[in-house]
Amino acid sequence: MPELTHFDDAGASRMVDISEKEATDRVAIASGLVRMRAETLARILDRSLVKGDVLEVARIAGIMAAKRTGDLIPLCHPISLESVQIQFTALDSSTLRIDSVVKIRGRTGVEMEALTAVSVAALTVYDMCKAIDRGIVIDAVQLEQKRGGVHGPYLRSPDSLSGSNLVKPD
Amino acid sequence: MPELTHFDDAGASRMVDISEKEATDRVAIASGLVRMRAETLARILDRSLVKGDVLEVARIAGIMAAKRTGDLIPLCHPISLESVQIQFTALDSSTLRIDSVVKIRGRTGVEMEALTAVSVAALTVYDMCKAIDRGIVIDAVQLEQKRGGVHGPYLRSPDSLSGSNLVKPD
Amino acid sequence: MPELTHFDDAGASRMVDISEKEATDRVAIASGLVRMRAETLARILDRSLVKGDVLEVARIAGIMAAKRTGDLIPLCHPISLESVQIQFTALDSSTLRIDSVVKIRGRTGVEMEALTAVSVAALTVYDMCKAIDRGIVIDAVQLEQKRGGVHGPYLRSPDSLSGSNLVKPD
Amino acid sequence: MPELTHFDDAGASRMVDISEKEATDRVAIASGLVRMRAETLARILDRSLVKGDVLEVARIAGIMAAKRTGDLIPLCHPISLESVQIQFTALDSSTLRIDSVVKIRGRTGVEMEALTAVSVAALTVYDMCKAIDRGIVIDAVQLEQKRGGVHGPYLRSPDSLSGSNLVKPD
Amino acid sequence: MPELTHFDDAGASRMVDISEKEATDRVAIASGLVRMRAETLARILDRSLVKGDVLEVARIAGIMAAKRTGDLIPLCHPISLESVQIQFTALDSSTLRIDSVVKIRGRTGVEMEALTAVSVAALTVYDMCKAIDRGIVIDAVQLEQKRGGVHGPYLRSPDSLSGSNLVKPD
Amino acid sequence: MPELTHFDDAGASRMVDISEKEATDRVAIASGLVRMRAETLARILDRSLVKGDVLEVARIAGIMAAKRTGDLIPLCHPISLESVQIQFTALDSSTLRIDSVVKIRGRTGVEMEALTAVSVAALTVYDMCKAIDRGIVIDAVQLEQKRGGVHGPYLRSPDSLSGSNLVKPD
Repeated sequence: MPELTHFDDAGASRMVDISEKEATDRVAIASGLVRMRAETLARILDRSLVKGDVLEVARIAGIMAAKRTGDLIPLCHPISLESVQIQFTALDSSTLRIDSVVKIRGRTGVEMEALTAVSVAALTVYDMCKAIDRGIVIDAVQLEQKRGGVHGPYLRSPDSLSGSNLVKPD
Repeated sequence: MPELTHFDDAGASRMVDISEKEATDRVAIASGLVRMRAETLARILDRSLVKGDVLEVARIAGIMAAKRTGDLIPLCHPISLESVQIQFTALDSSTLRIDSVVKIRGRTGVEMEALTAVSVAALTVYDMCKAIDRGIVIDAVQLEQKRGGVHGPYLRSPDSLSGSNLVKPD
Repeated sequence: MPELTHFDDAGASRMVDISEKEATDRVAIASGLVRMRAETLARILDRSLVKGDVLEVARIAGIMAAKRTGDLIPLCHPISLESVQIQFTALDSSTLRIDSVVKIRGRTGVEMEALTAVSVAALTVYDMCKAIDRGIVIDAVQLEQKRGGVHGPYLRSPDSLSGSNLVKPD
Repeated sequence: MPELTHFDDAGASRMVDISEKEATDRVAIASGLVRMRAETLARILDRSLVKGDVLEVARIAGIMAAKRTGDLIPLCHPISLESVQIQFTALDSSTLRIDSVVKIRGRTGVEMEALTAVSVAALTVYDMCKAIDRGIVIDAVQLEQKRGGVHGPYLRSPDSLSGSNLVKPD
Repeated sequence: MPELTHFDDAGASRMVDISEKEATDRVAIASGLVRMRAETLARILDRSLVKGDVLEVARIAGIMAAKRTGDLIPLCHPISLESVQIQFTALDSSTLRIDSVVKIRGRTGVEMEALTAVSVAALTVYDMCKAIDRGIVIDAVQLEQKRGGVHGPYLRSPDSLSGSNLVKPD
Repeated sequence: MPELTHFDDAGASRMVDISEKEATDRVAIASGLVRMRAETLARILDRSLVKGDVLEVARIAGIMAAKRTGDLIPLCHPISLESVQIQFTALDSSTLRIDSVVKIRGRTGVEMEALTAVSVAALTVYDMCKAIDRGIVIDAVQLEQKRGGVHGPYLRSPDSLSGSNLVKPD
């Protein structure tokens, strides 16, 4: 089995040296699910302005967190993100799906940024709804796709661990 | 259905006023799962120093992120955490469970800090293992318990949304 | 004329010692104006969801910035804010007024937090509209009121420097 | 009227994709005014070392804030600033003008960084003088010039909204 | 030998639980030396305004870093500092001494904040002078005194490891 | 004597303009010593997992701090680090040496990042051991080497101020 690149031969953690890598266009797409009571999701989806827009707050939180990924994940390279987008889709009456797309032209991939965007957007949904539903669960946070970089593209296969990737947002 | 406290009557988001609340001892316990290939988990659990310690890096990341919860979650109150602990347990050959316990004496609860600790610890596990396993999935991030505060204790029930809470770490 | 408290006798800057002060309930209210072309303000006020909600993004930015005031203003005490609210009012066809109210029970006032909330909310309005109106101006950022603390309440008087305080939002 | 670029067709906020844009030399110049009592400005301008140097503290605050613009303004791209300068000029006995010049070679403009530098420098002047003058007002924070980028240069015209741009610092 | 409090029985790092400790008045005093060429120190001490004030920039940096200690030191409790002061003294023609005094009323000590203030002030002196003196050395960063808390006062003794504490600033 | 580049002709601090400089490969190596009681160092070096690993926590802290150097040092350019490594060596029974190596391809050097990594790693060692040894001293934090950039390479000479550079880690 290959060794973990974040450790050197003595087991010391390190930020991997990417200074020799070529800058290429990179994209990462991640997703996650927020499972809650049907009444809670109904309340979120009722985006009348008088009620307040949970999803817009969560989106802003996810985008801002993506920009700070290198500050949160110890061995992640700090990068200057060039595009972040976050989408929400109701999969069924009690499941909200979050998708993020992150882009950069640089020497390292952006999957951590895409996953961080999804995670913090999901945590924000929890925060805003916790007064009415403390049982909300964040599930299936995962990388969907990745392009650019020397390792070639990654596309999550249907038989990967989580079943959630079988469900596609419209 | 009750209204969301993070919005005022006009639907504007706000940081809820806790200045009138009494400072009490508060505890929150959250958990989450990281699902991966068995070889990946075996590699993580082989904590010989020559290999490097993924879990210790993830633990530090989770603790540091808990301290910054108010910086990440838009309407969360900034607080001075007084205790954070994170534990890892292998539930089976391919599932790592993360538990966090957060404490404070203050005017607001710490469930967001506990959930953020788990989420960022899980993201860090992903980051450190992604070179050997891009299919890792973060699942079942949820609040387990909460004590202190006017709303009384919360204890996740067995019939709550996620099944993962039925599995208990040793 | 009294000396500036942020300098010691030798002219060295310092964070003023508040450790002997009593914790009291404190409130600060600040305001500011964003002046723009009438078409720009019309576009902002058209808060149909299909268009996107500039004010909600600005509000989130202002609240998050208020939490980080101690990180931005060198000699400001870091504090754990207990309430932040931001309101927007169209004063006329080309003027948007921003009001913030910040509360804490603590040993130092929160006027800097209230002013920072207004300033960053205003900068965010600029950012989101700059593609259509680069001439936007941020005006009359000022403290309106302040209560709590040993110096007694402050209420901006009509004959203070800026005329903008004469105009009251509905 | 053109749509706001920070929203997609569904009204969702986003960080605009700049990954296809060419890196060019970019400059932005912003300004702002701090209006105060004449005694306050006299005290600031008395920069004898025994009194302490308000302007130098404000300058440092403005420069540091410019570096963090992407952290403060939700949809602003994080960038690695290559030059920031801030100047102070007394326009008259009670008005302090702040000018900032920001440069970068990159894919996006730096007007938000220039405006943030001015705003935080102005807030710092307020903070340091508030013990002797709570009525200080921050006025006319605006973009003066902008060069580089596909949209061509911007130069504030004399008949733009604010009159303050007619007054030039020496 | 006593165990390290930052690890639990299984060797896992943790933020020590201080929620049961009593809030008391706490003070910490730290110091450090910056050794450089005599010409460099002469240049720094020539604090004529036309030359620029290295020490004031370093002081601001040290104060701001003290506020962020909990963000930098992984297991340090985040706290709301109530007083920070930094002093500079020329010990001889090539040695600059930095002293910091930090105060808080709280449940945990502030020695890390005092040491961080000294370290970052020293690094800033290096940064500002490195163009003329890359050989600058930061020496003898150490705790001088500590008061408050259950462990009683600490006062560095003359026979402690570093000799630098024998030298007292005027 | 040459003027300090961080000040303009009027003595105002500034972030030096590097926008005209060419991007080159840059490396900086820094070091520092942590002096403590022999029992303390013995405790640190006993890296059995049951005891907890002080050095790994310090390493993570140093790497994360290096990424934030531009946030800590007022006039330092913010940069996207491409490699950070930190090593620990016991020089004798009571002295721990810390070495950092930082790399980037960019328009400015990385010596501040290398020095910040060493300083914060050293502060973290202090924090984790302070319960058993408050007399720990951080010594001889200095630049060892620097390559890349217009000024040519720098190599600390044996007769430079600190003697610590004569001792080489294995």
